[in-house]
Amino acid sequence: MDYLEVPVRVRYADTDKMGIVYYGTYPQYFEIGRTELMRSKGLAYRAVEEMGYHLVVSGMEIKYHSSATYDDVLIVRVRVADIQSRGITFHYLILKDGQRVVEGKTKHICVNADWKAVRIPPAISELFIDAGHQ
Amino acid sequence: MDYLEVPVRVRYADTDKMGIVYYGTYPQYFEIGRTELMRSKGLAYRAVEEMGYHLVVSGMEIKYHSSATYDDVLIVRVRVADIQSRGITFHYLILKDGQRVVEGKTKHICVNADWKAVRIPPAISELFIDAGHQ
Amino acid sequence: MDYLEVPVRVRYADTDKMGIVYYGTYPQYFEIGRTELMRSKGLAYRAVEEMGYHLVVSGMEIKYHSSATYDDVLIVRVRVADIQSRGITFHYLILKDGQRVVEGKTKHICVNADWKAVRIPPAISELFIDAGHQ
Amino acid sequence: MDYLEVPVRVRYADTDKMGIVYYGTYPQYFEIGRTELMRSKGLAYRAVEEMGYHLVVSGMEIKYHSSATYDDVLIVRVRVADIQSRGITFHYLILKDGQRVVEGKTKHICVNADWKAVRIPPAISELFIDAGHQ
Repeated sequence: MDYLEVPVRVRYADTDKMGIVYYGTYPQYFEIGRTELMRSKGLAYRAVEEMGYHLVVSGMEIKYHSSATYDDVLIVRVRVADIQSRGITFHYLILKDGQRVVEGKTKHICVNADWKAVRIPPAISELFIDAGHQ
Repeated sequence: MDYLEVPVRVRYADTDKMGIVYYGTYPQYFEIGRTELMRSKGLAYRAVEEMGYHLVVSGMEIKYHSSATYDDVLIVRVRVADIQSRGITFHYLILKDGQRVVEGKTKHICVNADWKAVRIPPAISELFIDAGHQ
Repeated sequence: MDYLEVPVRVRYADTDKMGIVYYGTYPQYFEIGRTELMRSKGLAYRAVEEMGYHLVVSGMEIKYHSSATYDDVLIVRVRVADIQSRGITFHYLILKDGQRVVEGKTKHICVNADWKAVRIPPAISELFIDAGHQ
Repeated sequence: MDYLEVPVRVRYADTDKMGIVYYGTYPQYFEIGRTELMRSKGLAYRAVEEMGYHLVVSGMEIKYHSSATYDDVLIVRVRVADIQSRGITFHYLILKDGQRVVEGKTKHICVNADWKAVRIPPAISELFIDAGHQ
């Protein structure tokens, strides 16, 4: 299992009047997770965009198990669950004190500067395939 | 088919540096949709909370078909897809000029003031069962 | 006095764990106000950007008088307080049931496609000068 | 000068279609700054709320000097600029590579569990007065 754990401290702004993290905030934590996963592999996502590509989100699934609140330090455990020539799936497990808060995945396709779907460039796919995700 | 269509104009804040609506903004549009659906049935969600209940999100799925941007007027077409004694599922279709932008659903459970999962109170469930969702 | 009143319904996402609208949400309501003010004058802000200009925010001041919460319908009363060759200031008063919630202003400069500060193009400045703001 | 420097990495969600950090995101960075400043003094803000108090924002001023974008690591330099029996003012300077991005301040009053304005409890005020802010 090849994953990265990224700590995220909950901002006050991330909560809602229920007193907990708003359900629509978790996609931001996922994004932080995959940003750091790519950086840890040696290719920052901002460099991907500078190369003229975007990994556009085509789908997302989230299961909410328990809640988190302001000032909690959450752990975003992120890994590539699947990579194909034209798609990549990230999986996320968000933990608080070792307990599951949220589990999710996001599917991405690669588009070029003209917003055309393209094969994922080797510079990106090799990051994960070398790590045994095929 | 018993649904409501709710227009939402995209805020500048809803977009990201890709120039389009951030993928984590759509849950906010879903929330606007179900707020207005409940109001249209005669029970505002704020009244549900004043009664001491919350419809907590337990799961969400989203498919992203195309993009939207600042100032677009989107239509959130929302309906109750399923209602059980302890759970309710909302379905959402977000349209721009008649074209699908995003499709999704959210599953909810009902909790009381002590955050214990409870049967959905009749005041809520009857709104949708009367409408033929069973 | 030449102002526009724009209704904004508070999203659940706009609130925080204090149970009220997060203090950092109000700039989004200001943005909605000036978007609609420009549209009402005949030039949508998205058209300004399509012409290659941005009205970049250079300063903001906010006074918080009272609070608002989920589902409230707020009125954003917006006007141009000052317009110069190189700057424009919008003033906002946000009301709830006729009571002041927030008061603020934002100062903007105009930049072109190369992000150079430029004189405000007549297409924009005339919208407000014709209305007596000089 | 008694300040704290807090690094904040810009989330993709924090940006807008102009390609830079949305002007309404900076209050979130201020909030992160004062959260960490209080923690560094020995009293986490979440503990303040658990004691039944809130430091409600009554005013904010921001000057925007330059822009920041996704993945930038900003430094939030935060200090208490003024403290009175009933009010406290924080000052913020946000830097990117040593250059000013944004400067701002927020004024706060203290309210109790009944939302009545009260004198700032010694447990809070002493944190800053001991440090020479009077």
